[in-house]
Amino acid sequence: MLTGDQYRQSLADGRRVFFQGQEVDVLEHEIFQRSIRSVARTYDKYFNPEDGAISEYFRAPRSVEEMTAHAEHKVDVVTSNTYGSLMTLLTSADRIEAIRPEASAAMRGYVAYVQREDLRIAECITDAKGDRSKSASAQEDPDAYLRVVEQRPDGVVIRGAKLHISGAALSHELLVIPTKRMKEGEEAYSIACTVPVNAEGVKIVNVTSEPQGDANFLDAPISANAHTAMGFVIFDNVFVPGDRVFLNGEYQAAATFAHALGLWVRMNGLKNMADEADALVGFAQLIAEANGLQRAPNIRDRITEMIMHATIVRACLDAALSKSTVSAEGVVVPDELYANAGKYQGAAFRALMVSYIQDIAGGSLVTVPSSLDLENPEVGHEIRKYMSTMQSVDGKYRTSLFHALRDVVASGHAGQKQVATLQGGGGLTAQRIVTRGRYDLEKAKRQALELAGLDAPT
Amino acid sequence: MLTGDQYRQSLADGRRVFFQGQEVDVLEHEIFQRSIRSVARTYDKYFNPEDGAISEYFRAPRSVEEMTAHAEHKVDVVTSNTYGSLMTLLTSADRIEAIRPEASAAMRGYVAYVQREDLRIAECITDAKGDRSKSASAQEDPDAYLRVVEQRPDGVVIRGAKLHISGAALSHELLVIPTKRMKEGEEAYSIACTVPVNAEGVKIVNVTSEPQGDANFLDAPISANAHTAMGFVIFDNVFVPGDRVFLNGEYQAAATFAHALGLWVRMNGLKNMADEADALVGFAQLIAEANGLQRAPNIRDRITEMIMHATIVRACLDAALSKSTVSAEGVVVPDELYANAGKYQGAAFRALMVSYIQDIAGGSLVTVPSSLDLENPEVGHEIRKYMSTMQSVDGKYRTSLFHALRDVVASGHAGQKQVATLQGGGGLTAQRIVTRGRYDLEKAKRQALELAGLDAPT
Amino acid sequence: MLTGDQYRQSLADGRRVFFQGQEVDVLEHEIFQRSIRSVARTYDKYFNPEDGAISEYFRAPRSVEEMTAHAEHKVDVVTSNTYGSLMTLLTSADRIEAIRPEASAAMRGYVAYVQREDLRIAECITDAKGDRSKSASAQEDPDAYLRVVEQRPDGVVIRGAKLHISGAALSHELLVIPTKRMKEGEEAYSIACTVPVNAEGVKIVNVTSEPQGDANFLDAPISANAHTAMGFVIFDNVFVPGDRVFLNGEYQAAATFAHALGLWVRMNGLKNMADEADALVGFAQLIAEANGLQRAPNIRDRITEMIMHATIVRACLDAALSKSTVSAEGVVVPDELYANAGKYQGAAFRALMVSYIQDIAGGSLVTVPSSLDLENPEVGHEIRKYMSTMQSVDGKYRTSLFHALRDVVASGHAGQKQVATLQGGGGLTAQRIVTRGRYDLEKAKRQALELAGLDAPT
Amino acid sequence: MLTGDQYRQSLADGRRVFFQGQEVDVLEHEIFQRSIRSVARTYDKYFNPEDGAISEYFRAPRSVEEMTAHAEHKVDVVTSNTYGSLMTLLTSADRIEAIRPEASAAMRGYVAYVQREDLRIAECITDAKGDRSKSASAQEDPDAYLRVVEQRPDGVVIRGAKLHISGAALSHELLVIPTKRMKEGEEAYSIACTVPVNAEGVKIVNVTSEPQGDANFLDAPISANAHTAMGFVIFDNVFVPGDRVFLNGEYQAAATFAHALGLWVRMNGLKNMADEADALVGFAQLIAEANGLQRAPNIRDRITEMIMHATIVRACLDAALSKSTVSAEGVVVPDELYANAGKYQGAAFRALMVSYIQDIAGGSLVTVPSSLDLENPEVGHEIRKYMSTMQSVDGKYRTSLFHALRDVVASGHAGQKQVATLQGGGGLTAQRIVTRGRYDLEKAKRQALELAGLDAPT
Repeated sequence: MLTGDQYRQSLADGRRVFFQGQEVDVLEHEIFQRSIRSVARTYDKYFNPEDGAISEYFRAPRSVEEMTAHAEHKVDVVTSNTYGSLMTLLTSADRIEAIRPEASAAMRGYVAYVQREDLRIAECITDAKGDRSKSASAQEDPDAYLRVVEQRPDGVVIRGAKLHISGAALSHELLVIPTKRMKEGEEAYSIACTVPVNAEGVKIVNVTSEPQGDANFLDAPISANAHTAMGFVIFDNVFVPGDRVFLNGEYQAAATFAHALGLWVRMNGLKNMADEADALVGFAQLIAEANGLQRAPNIRDRITEMIMHATIVRACLDAALSKSTVSAEGVVVPDELYANAGKYQGAAFRALMVSYIQDIAGGSLVTVPSSLDLENPEVGHEIRKYMSTMQSVDGKYRTSLFHALRDVVASGHAGQKQVATLQGGGGLTAQRIVTRGRYDLEKAKRQALELAGLDAPT
Repeated sequence: MLTGDQYRQSLADGRRVFFQGQEVDVLEHEIFQRSIRSVARTYDKYFNPEDGAISEYFRAPRSVEEMTAHAEHKVDVVTSNTYGSLMTLLTSADRIEAIRPEASAAMRGYVAYVQREDLRIAECITDAKGDRSKSASAQEDPDAYLRVVEQRPDGVVIRGAKLHISGAALSHELLVIPTKRMKEGEEAYSIACTVPVNAEGVKIVNVTSEPQGDANFLDAPISANAHTAMGFVIFDNVFVPGDRVFLNGEYQAAATFAHALGLWVRMNGLKNMADEADALVGFAQLIAEANGLQRAPNIRDRITEMIMHATIVRACLDAALSKSTVSAEGVVVPDELYANAGKYQGAAFRALMVSYIQDIAGGSLVTVPSSLDLENPEVGHEIRKYMSTMQSVDGKYRTSLFHALRDVVASGHAGQKQVATLQGGGGLTAQRIVTRGRYDLEKAKRQALELAGLDAPT
Repeated sequence: MLTGDQYRQSLADGRRVFFQGQEVDVLEHEIFQRSIRSVARTYDKYFNPEDGAISEYFRAPRSVEEMTAHAEHKVDVVTSNTYGSLMTLLTSADRIEAIRPEASAAMRGYVAYVQREDLRIAECITDAKGDRSKSASAQEDPDAYLRVVEQRPDGVVIRGAKLHISGAALSHELLVIPTKRMKEGEEAYSIACTVPVNAEGVKIVNVTSEPQGDANFLDAPISANAHTAMGFVIFDNVFVPGDRVFLNGEYQAAATFAHALGLWVRMNGLKNMADEADALVGFAQLIAEANGLQRAPNIRDRITEMIMHATIVRACLDAALSKSTVSAEGVVVPDELYANAGKYQGAAFRALMVSYIQDIAGGSLVTVPSSLDLENPEVGHEIRKYMSTMQSVDGKYRTSLFHALRDVVASGHAGQKQVATLQGGGGLTAQRIVTRGRYDLEKAKRQALELAGLDAPT
Repeated sequence: MLTGDQYRQSLADGRRVFFQGQEVDVLEHEIFQRSIRSVARTYDKYFNPEDGAISEYFRAPRSVEEMTAHAEHKVDVVTSNTYGSLMTLLTSADRIEAIRPEASAAMRGYVAYVQREDLRIAECITDAKGDRSKSASAQEDPDAYLRVVEQRPDGVVIRGAKLHISGAALSHELLVIPTKRMKEGEEAYSIACTVPVNAEGVKIVNVTSEPQGDANFLDAPISANAHTAMGFVIFDNVFVPGDRVFLNGEYQAAATFAHALGLWVRMNGLKNMADEADALVGFAQLIAEANGLQRAPNIRDRITEMIMHATIVRACLDAALSKSTVSAEGVVVPDELYANAGKYQGAAFRALMVSYIQDIAGGSLVTVPSSLDLENPEVGHEIRKYMSTMQSVDGKYRTSLFHALRDVVASGHAGQKQVATLQGGGGLTAQRIVTRGRYDLEKAKRQALELAGLDAPT
């Protein structure tokens, strides 16, 4: 296992990373430092010096109770995504066994390797996709979906781009899988494999919603800690050795990986949304109290609405956990129907919940002065005076509370979070499709026919 | 235990029942006969001739598994309400122990009596209530809330009315409890007791949403089986012997019974809504298929919305069950937070789901000819011809399907069901209040403060 | 012009009408009498004995002011629909001129004839339609859409059925138009014409949502006056003379009539919804006051929501009127974009508004005793006592108010009204399609590009 | 009248302005320069060198047609707010006449002065407000609401703070009015007046949601042009001469100004929202087309929903304009009922419309590379390649479109805009209260009673 410092050193491996038009060193450029610190802290937290030890966080749960307990771990996004990748590989290994048995073994071996070496994996799914109304093989640019451009005896060469990748610049490995089902003739697009971040031909273009400038950072307590740079990962003729190729042309199984990953991504998203929904309730109540409005009926009503939302999202989470099944290989799999419906519910109504806070908190959400203004000798004491609402609510506290609220509901970070929540696990439409697919529609029809006293039409 | 026939005979006990201005005999008047048959069938189904046997349905579950299994029983409304009354009494007995120990024993004894004699209980909660902006003791008419008008050595005399009572005319016993919390000075209103339906001074005024006239009944397959007459129960100076009095003046505990009942009513309501939501999905899909529209995007989309709703309501049910706790007395109690949130969600969005069917099905919902028209030699074959949509969808089938749909979404029964669903367990506002009360708001605030990096204001 | 009595006599013309399996006489059967009285009253109200007089109500408005004034007339449904038919014919006559000039003249002549003879017209649009996923000419049964089965020198013979027809049994004329656009090869389906109700081969099968039984009628003040029997109209080889044929094979213009009619139906629907939305607000406030709850925040909030809805629906109506245009022929045509959006808004949220009343009013909506019970000497005074809430709210008044409320939000009539509102003018999807079609999407794109500082992609 | 340059020079008047802890010069600090350029452009656009000329934009409309035409002007926010202030003063002058006649004259004189000198006014309404559950006079800090601290023969001295002030640092005058109604004993808080921005004791603390850093600005085409610094305006014992005092102790009229202003603010907000709603539709359609998804049913459906929203908001605007009334003094006043309902509708559903774009556009909303990356020789051509979706949609165009979209729906500017839209004119609750107040509830009750055939309870 690695310590935080060893992790840091491991990033100096020749990886090619770009930001705002410049090639940069992740160990140097300011936009990566907070994220690196955050990942390093997780390394230190789980570090176990024993020989052959693996991170407790990376151990696959083998019962509903273990999975419920696992959900209590608090780790950084890069580590959390790595867990999702490992679970995806274990779940897919079961499903891929029949079609490509050597891949199942390779995947299980790879999981053990990552656990042993204590690496971090970034999930690379979404292709550039070109014209969405056409399939992979019908695109004007054949690279719109990542594909194998050369089969070699010892491996394959791939080309394409993967978009919306969290933490690629801070991971060691990239898990590359098809973004959706493929059909006959799309064998070249039916490629799943892993690639080291520093492999030749890999280039990561980063973006950030992190506040910029020290003054703004100071007043952004949430985004300052929640941030991970997102990446646009280019695979410019990258060679992948055979033992890291898990699918290569078996188009019938192209969607297996994304389906498996989808479940873990949504389950993780559901967990995060349940926690976030509670925090949003808490923020709403805090500002209502700071404004002296916690008993105003319209405010109470909105907060109650938020409580309903938080409770229902968590009910879906608990239902998905309580209805988990354990696979033949011993992997615990949450109920996909509830996980998807919960993810949908949480994401679909999140914007409304956020708008409730925007409505409750009032205009200071966006006009609150900076912490630096509080220090100014000419106006600092007056801001403190006028931002205070009663003896128990100090102007400094209320100013800081507004900074946090702005960061949650009205900042660039807030926008980034909202989009990531909606799009994570494939967007609202994806969750609707999966929920519909998992729902027992025939049973529902039989129940309706029985109530109506009718036989099914033939 | 009683057979269905014995149940029928037991109703000839002098009870006073009114309908549309006339005093009627429940064993004779047409509006009661379907319901009586339905209750009698349940008696026959669970009948066990062994000495001292009690109905399997009335046995209190002692584990989550038993409660989950119990939810699978299908019984009539009168029997289902009796179960709710028994569970309420057992749950309340635990809670009332400290304040009125002799009542706890009386309640448990009463439960055993009802089980042994195989009786049916109607829950009498809602008072006339007068001016809702005033408490019980501040009403212009002191009888607006049912009250004790005389304390006697051997019992009490009560006066008042209880409204919205399901199946009173078809039960043996009335469980009378305060509708809400009472305060000092409202001792007379703090009365919980049971009263036989044929007790002197009890009068039941019935209403029905059942279709009237044979022709209409024929085309109402749902309401024909779902109907139970509702009652307005008048207590005109009714004497209650001491051993049937469970609360008498202890105003602090007045709400205990309604709270306990509320949980069971909402849990039962949640179960029924989860099943109904699936049936609504089934009906929507059946009519879409009969119309040839199951692939039309706007229709699919609405049905998917209904699937989301059905799934989320059921997730709340499963979560409430999986988080049940077992009381000291061994009674299993579902999680109140999830039960309430689920009941709220199901009820609050039901009208929308119904409106989706109204939109999907089309105008034949309300213009479909009668089954009798199908038999008419002049027009019957033409209706059949024009109601058919393709070879596999016969005109008779589709006509009957529309009858069932109308009964579910556009009939007087549909209106009654919608109101009963909204109001059952106390209306949407009641569920909001209870959910808010059970939600851990302080924990949510702590989580928000932690994210914001702030200490709580003092 | 005709008096009410003359109208009544005019219905004894050999028309063939069916109800619940029997052929019936509209002047005798009880389900038609209320409607006939209602239409007859309108005849008397507008009767002008002068020679050549025409009903003031049937005069086409020639300015926005006249149209606004016209919207204030209160007439029965049959007369209101006749107005819609006349306006449809005048609007279509302009549009059909180029393609079939003789039809334009025939239509204008027909309008003059109907005005002069003071007749009533029922709009016959919706076909049986068979499998909705297939066009008219692709149906298994070629009669699934009404069609010309024989071209004769002096006219055509038509066969098919028209569904969801309001007041057919009480009108003199049927306006038969294609339900939607037709394509090459569907000339036989491209038929628009008028047919007297008593023409040979016309058979009307009626349905009703009117309460049945005197006792129920007594307590249904709304449906007792709002009712019109709906009909399923069968055209069994009906001959139509040439001068009543307005379209015959010109498939390109098949949708012209339905488009024109759609506007008037939706505009009328919008007007009715605006009025109804105000009445729903009024009902909600009345019952809140009768319950003493008009100041309860949750009740106030819901009523405010209803006020918002009513105001926005009326804003759409006023905007559609204020943006009217006058055609070359002098016909005033309301703005189609606003008329459709308003109809959509009113219909889409109606179920929610109704559910608010269901929630606010409480369970007595469906458990309120009958008026007859109030007269019963044993229980009448007690019902009156317990239905009263304070001195100013008498039990009789509140009982009657609940009867009216039930009729509006929980009766078979309520269901019928809700479906008719949703489906009138073609259902929600139709309004969405028309609104989208009328909206200037290209302008919206240009505005977005301008804000973004971008040129349109080529 | 002033030219843009003269305006610029006029700002060098000793005003005291703060930003992020520093006192700054508005003519120098970067955050003000874009806004100043924008205001200056408006000056140049309307400049008329004739003696005694006044800006065409500042002329009060005297008919509905003039007001409709006025709504077509496109000006910067500071100038637009000045117009709102002038209209507020003219409307209030009518209403204040009876209670303080000399103020009416002073207000009209002041309007003429501002028009003549071509000044800009910032509206200062919202007080610090302290504990919202208490009135102005019950606050722990008596300055929580701005108040008169000294009456002098020649004027008054005021102290307090006004929050959420747009463009204070770029205006010449501050219009100070009470934020809400006041009661007896709150005479000191019943103060309305105007104060020059450079008056002694005025200090403005500014905040901005403008992107910071050149790289970020480059990719923010909307916020780069829409930005105006918001201010927290401190009045530290500011003297106001008598002829600029419009209310001084007449507490009964305290709300007059805010009511008048509210109408103009909401009307302006409604106009802006109607335009913005169209632009949001345009953006949604542009990105759908760029992604090749404009025909996907779920995408079309969402865009149709946005079209419905845009149409209904505009219908409210048109209805408010068409129902305008003209006051005795000749001021045209839009219909307050429709203006408020429209503002509410637009604001309440804005977050949902924004979330539709977030859902439609996809993850590139927040992961789109920077324009600078497109220039990088190592990755620029690859980003261009992979951001392109088909020949007609160039990678550069689509990248820029995503930048614009992010700026509209996921940036700090987007958050600021959303909060400002919700809170402008007093928040959703304020619009609900005003709409309810203007709605004719008694008429609605009468209509309901008439339908029910009931007399009003006495």
